[in-house]
Amino acid sequence: METLLKGSGKTVTIDNEGNFTIIGESINPTRRKKLIETLQAGNFDYALQLAETQIAYGADILDINVGFPGVDDENLLPAVVKAVNEKYDVPLCLDTPNPKALAAGLSATPGKALVNSVNGEEKSLQAILPVVKEYGAAVIGLCMDDDGISNDPEVRVSIAGKILERAAKSGIAAENVVIDPLVMSVGSDDNAGMVSLQTIELVRHEFGVNITMGASNVSFGLPDREILNQAFLVAAMYAGASCAITNPVKFTTIIRAADLLLARDEYAGRYIKHYRTVQKLNASAVN
Amino acid sequence: METLLKGSGKTVTIDNEGNFTIIGESINPTRRKKLIETLQAGNFDYALQLAETQIAYGADILDINVGFPGVDDENLLPAVVKAVNEKYDVPLCLDTPNPKALAAGLSATPGKALVNSVNGEEKSLQAILPVVKEYGAAVIGLCMDDDGISNDPEVRVSIAGKILERAAKSGIAAENVVIDPLVMSVGSDDNAGMVSLQTIELVRHEFGVNITMGASNVSFGLPDREILNQAFLVAAMYAGASCAITNPVKFTTIIRAADLLLARDEYAGRYIKHYRTVQKLNASAVN
Repeated sequence: METLLKGSGKTVTIDNEGNFTIIGESINPTRRKKLIETLQAGNFDYALQLAETQIAYGADILDINVGFPGVDDENLLPAVVKAVNEKYDVPLCLDTPNPKALAAGLSATPGKALVNSVNGEEKSLQAILPVVKEYGAAVIGLCMDDDGISNDPEVRVSIAGKILERAAKSGIAAENVVIDPLVMSVGSDDNAGMVSLQTIELVRHEFGVNITMGASNVSFGLPDREILNQAFLVAAMYAGASCAITNPVKFTTIIRAADLLLARDEYAGRYIKHYRTVQKLNASAVN
Repeated sequence: METLLKGSGKTVTIDNEGNFTIIGESINPTRRKKLIETLQAGNFDYALQLAETQIAYGADILDINVGFPGVDDENLLPAVVKAVNEKYDVPLCLDTPNPKALAAGLSATPGKALVNSVNGEEKSLQAILPVVKEYGAAVIGLCMDDDGISNDPEVRVSIAGKILERAAKSGIAAENVVIDPLVMSVGSDDNAGMVSLQTIELVRHEFGVNITMGASNVSFGLPDREILNQAFLVAAMYAGASCAITNPVKFTTIIRAADLLLARDEYAGRYIKHYRTVQKLNASAVN
């Protein structure tokens, strides 16, 4: 299935039969005090620099999250969206729980954005889906609801089903819903990785829709997190995920490697191109 | 299914329901001139040092290959086997195409070794299986035959079936045959990874036997080989492989990470233990 997204210039297709799609996660204030400070001062240079770096390392789409305490996100989100759109042509993923900020952000982008996110809670479905429909966007659906996050893959899949059903009723086609199975840490529950992987397999099999996830949560609280995140990305890709919200500087290489191993990279073209890109970026960083 | 192996002291079980088993590949003259030179001089110190390092980094079993031009492997293989057995208690994997060297090597080990390897060629089946049976060993069966290596997973699986059938006729139970799907480079054929992964899935499903492979071949001819090998190991583990012949110094960490993600590591115990081991080894290497 194909989920079409558009930026100010570029069209990106999330496609579970094709290459894996990378959503750059870095324009996010979590653990980035400098981003909060510069945005509060009305200075978008650092946000744009984060955009530039992520695109250079292979981000297909950029997640934009400006949520921090005291923020006026109904004004800041559209302002950042505009600034990024003016300089970069990739599609955006608008990351906010505030429906008003979301509507303002969507009205500021000329393309077709991805909304991060709706979930199976009644309140979320009612607040987010009409906005997604109004602006002709696509939306990420998280496999949790009013009962929280289940450890049973079947329950998560049934929530995915509910989100798809409610989206359809709101006039949003299945191709415009990207399901996130949710990923918990294997540090607190050693079965957590398999729950997410089985959810991915089942969602892919039952609904055929595109699947995304944040890969970094899986390693929370454990040492050597990067290797766990890498392994999880590969397993999730093999299980049927079609995109991830991740740090392209750290994880594009393993994603390109897995695409090649899973026969989604003709003549290893994308793998080799990325290798050369990283070599050049590293060389210019040294000089 | 469980394949039981014994060294001079230790028992190791290859188990497709349990932890992944690591067969250390480094006692092998390919690209190791120093090993050839020292063995030719009757000096086993370097071979023993390779054994020590691999065990320290997590090898469960050691592959022993002394094949180089002009070698008297019928005497050298048992001599190296004895030397390793005297100092280390892990099971061995005897790696030779020469049935006489194999018999001499097996008679020199007190435990139950793994034989690397038989394949579906008539000549190989007739030469190797009787030796495996005579010494009560287990054997790796490569999915190739007189017609070479097929690009069709179904053909590879049928060769696995033939090897299992011929082994059974020779009195070797399925639990003592570990199938190797064979892994070709994605550098020369971008479908090669999927052929191996599909063969793994099918062999696991149809025969339920243990599955091993060499993970490094997949990246031959490409840059940044380690990341491709890592990704392939994770995908192969998820597909159903139960062990690999690999370099534990480079690849134990990703294997432990994948075991944890695939719910084969209670409380992340093995992952964290390995992390601490590597920290200590690195610290002592620096001091």
